[in-house]
Amino acid sequence: MTKRSMTVDDHRFLMNAVNIARVHMERGHGGPFGALIVKDGILLAEGWNEVTTANDPTAHAEVVAIRRACASLGSFSLTGTTIYASCEPCPMCLGAIYWAHIDRLVFAGNKADAAAAGFDDAFIYEEFERDAAKRRLVTVHSPLIEMDAVFSAWLAKTDRKPY
Amino acid sequence: MTKRSMTVDDHRFLMNAVNIARVHMERGHGGPFGALIVKDGILLAEGWNEVTTANDPTAHAEVVAIRRACASLGSFSLTGTTIYASCEPCPMCLGAIYWAHIDRLVFAGNKADAAAAGFDDAFIYEEFERDAAKRRLVTVHSPLIEMDAVFSAWLAKTDRKPY
Repeated sequence: MTKRSMTVDDHRFLMNAVNIARVHMERGHGGPFGALIVKDGILLAEGWNEVTTANDPTAHAEVVAIRRACASLGSFSLTGTTIYASCEPCPMCLGAIYWAHIDRLVFAGNKADAAAAGFDDAFIYEEFERDAAKRRLVTVHSPLIEMDAVFSAWLAKTDRKPY
Repeated sequence: MTKRSMTVDDHRFLMNAVNIARVHMERGHGGPFGALIVKDGILLAEGWNEVTTANDPTAHAEVVAIRRACASLGSFSLTGTTIYASCEPCPMCLGAIYWAHIDRLVFAGNKADAAAAGFDDAFIYEEFERDAAKRRLVTVHSPLIEMDAVFSAWLAKTDRKPY
């Protein structure tokens, strides 16, 4: 069995993520998205979309689940875990999954489904593929030698902690 | 003057973001990154990297600044704002900037500078460009009709709140 195939446990956890999406949408907590993080078959944390109730545009299901799983472990690394998401992660959440060093992602809906339901995931993925000069986000790159000096100081810092 | 050119105020705010990066790195709060968000010339919020002290892999400077600016406005939208970042945002932060509906981004260092200082930004951007099957993150897409039903229920929800 490769890790790219679905197990019975995978199906159960993914169905739970979809159920979280439904329940919290029905309760008016935010968009219809749910996620959970599992390590060695044990549930570490659940998350659901709370953007409009928490007034936090970063409070997507996956980001919330990552924060909670890290808090429960007391670690900024989720190595060895799988994240189950009701829908394909948007660029923000996919980036968060990489920074958390999660090993495996299992999802149900995809970004086209999300777009059809009125969410910007596909648009944001398209923006990423454009040159910065052609993005809707007006983008200005202004190099500063002062920032080069900060990076040099970081590399010279003997007690720096990588993440 | 186009919004793509740098003003004196832009330079001042960007230098402030670089200073935030330096000060909080020196204090051991996390990686050497700072950000701030400005609306109509007024500072709304500052953020700095707190990944290793908050045990939160999503606590990048831009994400922290976005959360704080939204909290200060009591809104999940930052329309009409500019974000100043000491370094080019990673995919997670760039996605967060889009979800927050920030209008303009000004940054100093770029992703190559970040990579040279030991950060994964460039690697994560490369991963985004790969097919999911070829990414380091093992990725499994398992469509579920139950998730289609959740999206349909969302679209049928009369009091849904877009974001």
